[in-house]
Amino acid sequence: MSNWEHLITIEQMEEATNALLETGKKVGADSWQQRVKNQTPHCGFGESGTCCRICSMGPCRVTPKSPRGICGCDVHGIVGRNYLRFTAGGAATHSDHGRSICHTLHAVSPTGVYQVKDPEKLIRIAKEWGVETENKDIYDLAHEVSEMALMEYGKPFGVSRWIARAPEHTQKLWHDAGVEPRAIDREVSQSMHMTHMGCSSLPEALVHQSMRAGLCDGWGGSMCGTEFSDVLFGTPKPIDTEANIGVMDKDMVNIVVHGHDPSLSEMIVFFANDPEMIALAKEQGAKGINICGVCCTANEVAMRHGIPMAGNFLQQENVVLTGACEAIVVDVQCIFPALGPLSKCFHTKFITTSPIARMPDSEFIEVNELNAGENAKAIVKMAIENFKNRKPDLVNIPQLKTKARVGYSLEAIKKELDGVCNSHVDTYGTMKPLVDCVKSGVLRGAVAMVGCNNPKVRPDTAHIELMKKLLENDIIVVVSGCSAQAAAKAGLMDPDAAKYCGEGLKRVCRLVGIPPVLHMGSCVDISRMMVLASDIAKDWGINISQIPLVGCAPEWMSEKAVSIGNYVVATGIDTYLGVDPYTKGSTEITKALQGEDGWCAKNLEAHFVVDLDINSLCDRMIAAIETKRTALGI
Amino acid sequence: MSNWEHLITIEQMEEATNALLETGKKVGADSWQQRVKNQTPHCGFGESGTCCRICSMGPCRVTPKSPRGICGCDVHGIVGRNYLRFTAGGAATHSDHGRSICHTLHAVSPTGVYQVKDPEKLIRIAKEWGVETENKDIYDLAHEVSEMALMEYGKPFGVSRWIARAPEHTQKLWHDAGVEPRAIDREVSQSMHMTHMGCSSLPEALVHQSMRAGLCDGWGGSMCGTEFSDVLFGTPKPIDTEANIGVMDKDMVNIVVHGHDPSLSEMIVFFANDPEMIALAKEQGAKGINICGVCCTANEVAMRHGIPMAGNFLQQENVVLTGACEAIVVDVQCIFPALGPLSKCFHTKFITTSPIARMPDSEFIEVNELNAGENAKAIVKMAIENFKNRKPDLVNIPQLKTKARVGYSLEAIKKELDGVCNSHVDTYGTMKPLVDCVKSGVLRGAVAMVGCNNPKVRPDTAHIELMKKLLENDIIVVVSGCSAQAAAKAGLMDPDAAKYCGEGLKRVCRLVGIPPVLHMGSCVDISRMMVLASDIAKDWGINISQIPLVGCAPEWMSEKAVSIGNYVVATGIDTYLGVDPYTKGSTEITKALQGEDGWCAKNLEAHFVVDLDINSLCDRMIAAIETKRTALGI
Repeated sequence: MSNWEHLITIEQMEEATNALLETGKKVGADSWQQRVKNQTPHCGFGESGTCCRICSMGPCRVTPKSPRGICGCDVHGIVGRNYLRFTAGGAATHSDHGRSICHTLHAVSPTGVYQVKDPEKLIRIAKEWGVETENKDIYDLAHEVSEMALMEYGKPFGVSRWIARAPEHTQKLWHDAGVEPRAIDREVSQSMHMTHMGCSSLPEALVHQSMRAGLCDGWGGSMCGTEFSDVLFGTPKPIDTEANIGVMDKDMVNIVVHGHDPSLSEMIVFFANDPEMIALAKEQGAKGINICGVCCTANEVAMRHGIPMAGNFLQQENVVLTGACEAIVVDVQCIFPALGPLSKCFHTKFITTSPIARMPDSEFIEVNELNAGENAKAIVKMAIENFKNRKPDLVNIPQLKTKARVGYSLEAIKKELDGVCNSHVDTYGTMKPLVDCVKSGVLRGAVAMVGCNNPKVRPDTAHIELMKKLLENDIIVVVSGCSAQAAAKAGLMDPDAAKYCGEGLKRVCRLVGIPPVLHMGSCVDISRMMVLASDIAKDWGINISQIPLVGCAPEWMSEKAVSIGNYVVATGIDTYLGVDPYTKGSTEITKALQGEDGWCAKNLEAHFVVDLDINSLCDRMIAAIETKRTALGI
Repeated sequence: MSNWEHLITIEQMEEATNALLETGKKVGADSWQQRVKNQTPHCGFGESGTCCRICSMGPCRVTPKSPRGICGCDVHGIVGRNYLRFTAGGAATHSDHGRSICHTLHAVSPTGVYQVKDPEKLIRIAKEWGVETENKDIYDLAHEVSEMALMEYGKPFGVSRWIARAPEHTQKLWHDAGVEPRAIDREVSQSMHMTHMGCSSLPEALVHQSMRAGLCDGWGGSMCGTEFSDVLFGTPKPIDTEANIGVMDKDMVNIVVHGHDPSLSEMIVFFANDPEMIALAKEQGAKGINICGVCCTANEVAMRHGIPMAGNFLQQENVVLTGACEAIVVDVQCIFPALGPLSKCFHTKFITTSPIARMPDSEFIEVNELNAGENAKAIVKMAIENFKNRKPDLVNIPQLKTKARVGYSLEAIKKELDGVCNSHVDTYGTMKPLVDCVKSGVLRGAVAMVGCNNPKVRPDTAHIELMKKLLENDIIVVVSGCSAQAAAKAGLMDPDAAKYCGEGLKRVCRLVGIPPVLHMGSCVDISRMMVLASDIAKDWGINISQIPLVGCAPEWMSEKAVSIGNYVVATGIDTYLGVDPYTKGSTEITKALQGEDGWCAKNLEAHFVVDLDINSLCDRMIAAIETKRTALGI
């Protein structure tokens, strides 16, 4: 057992939160901690997936005395339909974010607020899609490719362009199982149709479409989101930053960006660096402007600009509770409506910017690809002018922060690996050095740790404790989303944290110059992990399902997480969940998703594992990795 | 009060059902009547829309002690999100059916099983869409237009092509309110995104998108479904048929078609007329093959071929309970999963044919645009060969049936109106003769009566009783869906029923030669009603919202009905519901949808009225029509 002595502990974080909640009490603020108490216990029908509200004959609930809904649907159909709708919600959400990025790309111009920051990547994608790139203006190319990308959402025929990136074996599995995703939005609509009253109730059909809807996200909408965000805002490369609530600065104008779509936060960051705005901040008595991030928006701007990360999902109220948040500026997804009433207890401006995410008690200033310059600047200005309204006696910023190195896009990982290649014998730009480490046993394998926080799990504990144990066992961890922020807040992204790892991993980290937990981005960026796994499989010459690699979402809460889980499983990677996806009411759906001989395992070579005991979850992941090693004879 | 003496009464229908349920008891069959008992009372949270299962932190339920979900969403946000998702489910479902029709159109060939049956209509639509039609082969045109139609589902830019059919005033309202529907599937996906955890909770934003999602159905997907079904299978014109359970024939091979998409039922009807199949039926000891319809599939084949209608939604189990149903062949939507176990109690083959609607205890024979010829024939054959397996002691077909004249597409209505025009002074092909009747007061107005059955209302009573009262008051009724079948089963589509109507309506019916209740088709065909209302407004020179016309769905149950309600309201037509759409938990959502100065009324000139008392609902409709007359000074 290592001694992770320099890490920030869960207890320290909880202490900081408790201090902030004290301020909350003073001003009469509500909190998620209180709301969880009010909402406990949860409805057992809802939690087991056995309640149906799909038509207005009901709602119907399955009990031993009422084994079928009014239409005659049994428990497996009801649970399965709810699961597919849950997936569709997630796939639609990720993909609609991706669509917004494609529209932003369509609006680029050499003199506009949105420009092409990574032309090389754009050209690479264009070539992948068979677009002529020679002698073409990069902006013309951007417009052409963005239109093709937008067509991925609605083309009447054919399947996703992105799936050509998967290994041939994977593509064949998808084809044979009939889960190749067609137009992204069509998969969402069809999922809604299949779950309409009087359509599908056969478990295997519902699980089948759940996988296809997941794939239209991970190998469709999310991949559009990731890839074209890189084209627009730059492909992340290693950069140093800081994390935890202490990144807020009492002497600065603190603007918190929160949500998911970087089209907004990029502009906020841009104008926060505007000398005119900095001067204005100083005029108002501040030392400057401090942008901090929460949730995936934090990941986006941390990865590209080193913007510090104030917290993850369940800490979004904390930033307001510091009393030092001049504005919390949000785009879409995972934003607590609670921020409305909460911000009213402080001087904080709660600014919503997207027609997709309108909330009561917020100021709505729409920021889109056409007005972003003007409106983002207005928002920054509004925040600065709000500095004077702070109530000094409410200001309390817990002094908790750590160093973190982030920015591990697939391109960045390959570049780091190139650094340990021998130019005489090795090909650059491959995953081979990593594969060699795994083959030799220096690394035992890898875990992709992702997903949210959920009050059903002591916040961040599962993320952090699992990571620590995996690292001790020479298992490298790649992360995204709120899991990444949990790691960063604890200090696991400090390259120095390598010293606590197992001997093999420690050596690898030092040799390559990386932290033991690699931040790959936001939740749409789990698409990066899919390409990573594909490239490992290709460079190794094995199937994805054979790699000593598992996925894990120990504290997930959103529909997006289920959509992700589905495409990770469908890509051949066993996925470990610490929260039940409302499916325990049906043995058949549970078996199809989780069974070692269930529908997923048989057709896609991977399955889910749900285990609410985090220690057991961890042991099972390690065992699964070792089993895969044994099967490979390594 | 008229004496509707020759109509079939609700009591007679219930008596027939009770006799069938006796057979059910004999064989140990379950029934919806029993399942309703098992499922009563319903969950109060679900019924009021105040339960949220959108993320896995919950489920959350709003009570006085827990006024907000864990994320902080209040009751208006929760009810509003549930309402938008309900709408999205309906819009996706109708539209995906429309998509399937577009794909069928794409597969037409002069020698194939699917052909262009109404080339004139195809050319008319092509011209509407700006397609060159001169000297173009009709099949080339069909392929070109079908590709354009499929693009309506996913085009990255622009709004629905169909909305150009609406009056300019309506189009302006939509534009100003920002509800012009973009690509059909995009509106569904965006609805799912907006309702994802941490996106929209502002009531007006949720109602706004509910209207837009509804419009992408009625003025998008459903219109594709209707218009291209007409192109493929012929535009309906008046035709005589029969209705009610007695249309089944004990001496024939009875094949019941059920569902919505006519691509299947057209083929079943085709092969049932195949001399080879008829000969086979006779070999098996039957007198021939009798196709009957249930639900909207019944409407489709009744309107085009005069196929008799055995029953509507809540009678789908009855057809099996007759013991004389050799096969119930289904496509998509509103199909009880109960038919699986029920058919096992009899000799009936329950045949599912669509990957969208897979059910346990069914035989799955996929029928699509490529294999329809072969597989539909195989299904007919299978049914015939099943005739010998009947159990004679279980056969009981209640002798209840009526005459009905159906087939009133918009084109057919105009043609009927042309019949009363004076060729010297009138323009043919307009709604003017009808407008003149309304202006003069011979007709007071019109009600578009639509929607399902729902056990929350005594089945068919609301449909039939409302219609009778309206007809007595000289209000003409246009119908679709299960409402149409309720009318037909009672005898209200017999042209002879005119004699029970008010004096004005009676005169109009006799002069024009129509029944007092006009069957306009299936539930996607409510798009016909939208064009009808538009044409009336244009020919009259007033706005749609000024026409003495209301919509009514007194017994609705499906998500499609809510989507329909939204687009009917958004088109400017007040819509009366006899079942609450799970919104009563929020005063704000209720006001936005139902208030006379709510969001819908202010922006779209119409609103919902929910009244569970059917008499009161009727009186309010009549009063509303009279109020509109007064406002017009007529």
